Amino acid sequence: MQENVKELVEEIKNMSELMLDLAYSSVLFESKDIAKEVKLLHQRLEEMEEKTYLHLFAASRGKLAKRMISVIDIVESAKWVAFAAKNLSNMVLEGSALHPVIKEALKDSDESITKAIITRSSILCNKTIGELRLRTEMGLNILAIRRGERWIFDPKKQTDMKEGDIMICVGPSYSCEKLRKIAIGKVKSI
Amino acid sequence: MQENVKELVEEIKNMSELMLDLAYSSVLFESKDIAKEVKLLHQRLEEMEEKTYLHLFAASRGKLAKRMISVIDIVESAKWVAFAAKNLSNMVLEGSALHPVIKEALKDSDESITKAIITRSSILCNKTIGELRLRTEMGLNILAIRRGERWIFDPKKQTDMKEGDIMICVGPSYSCEKLRKIAIGKVKSI
Repeated sequence: MQENVKELVEEIKNMSELMLDLAYSSVLFESKDIAKEVKLLHQRLEEMEEKTYLHLFAASRGKLAKRMISVIDIVESAKWVAFAAKNLSNMVLEGSALHPVIKEALKDSDESITKAIITRSSILCNKTIGELRLRTEMGLNILAIRRGERWIFDPKKQTDMKEGDIMICVGPSYSCEKLRKIAIGKVKSI
Repeated sequence: MQENVKELVEEIKNMSELMLDLAYSSVLFESKDIAKEVKLLHQRLEEMEEKTYLHLFAASRGKLAKRMISVIDIVESAKWVAFAAKNLSNMVLEGSALHPVIKEALKDSDESITKAIITRSSILCNKTIGELRLRTEMGLNILAIRRGERWIFDPKKQTDMKEGDIMICVGPSYSCEKLRKIAIGKVKSI
């Protein structure tokens, strides 16, 4: 069970932080698209929470029993972060009128976050992240990849991009825009 | 008032995220030292919240009045993140027995967070961040600098380090260790 719980806690933490990044971006860009991703992640996080506790309770005897409280504490904290993210994205989904100071406050230099869906005709398709060199060439950092129902956090050099993958990247605004064009096959070089 | 509120909201957001980073590190390293910083930041955040609302209410007429709700929403969300951070650091301050899966889950590759206090004899003292090249030479990212009561988030190249400054850096574990030695003047080169 230790291995399972470890992985679940790691994913819950990473997911809650990604949610927060995405949620602030959804407000900054008033993007319902990104706000919806946050909502999806929130559902997934709740499922993972249930799984974690099932594993934990299944093994709730022995000398580690008392220490299980600490796992619950961590998960609860990640949930507060996720809750904050959900609140933020709800502002966007409900179309709240934003005060102009908000965008000013959230604009962090020229960085922005983007979501790009890989099509078959894209030069990204079937390449590994190592080969793509998005960070070196475009200053882009891949935060996560959504592949169907599954999320890949902190993807590795060996991870390859497949048709239909949704990449979540952070980097200079112009690179984010270019990436979206590369992903749909409209631009053919990095 | 717009400029003030903008800066306050920006700082509240950055501060809550720094708190979360620090809080997870305090758990990972069971460091009461870092946990105490989180507690201090929490106090500061509450003061800033009050200031923000004072500014906001002082200007609560006119066509932007309704949009002020959105500022409160953002501040509230940052507070949930800060609350999560406080919970995490309280685990450390209260000496909760941690389940072994937690450290495994929080260990993010070889990255760690450190706090380094600059002494007068350090080679860092009175140099700008640009001159120091900590990122290029040691892979270190400066998250924030505490100067007395004031916090500098996302410090710039031109920011100079002064005696007594507390740097909060993230980077490879061995670089973090070296930085602490450089800061107290025990090591004389980067």
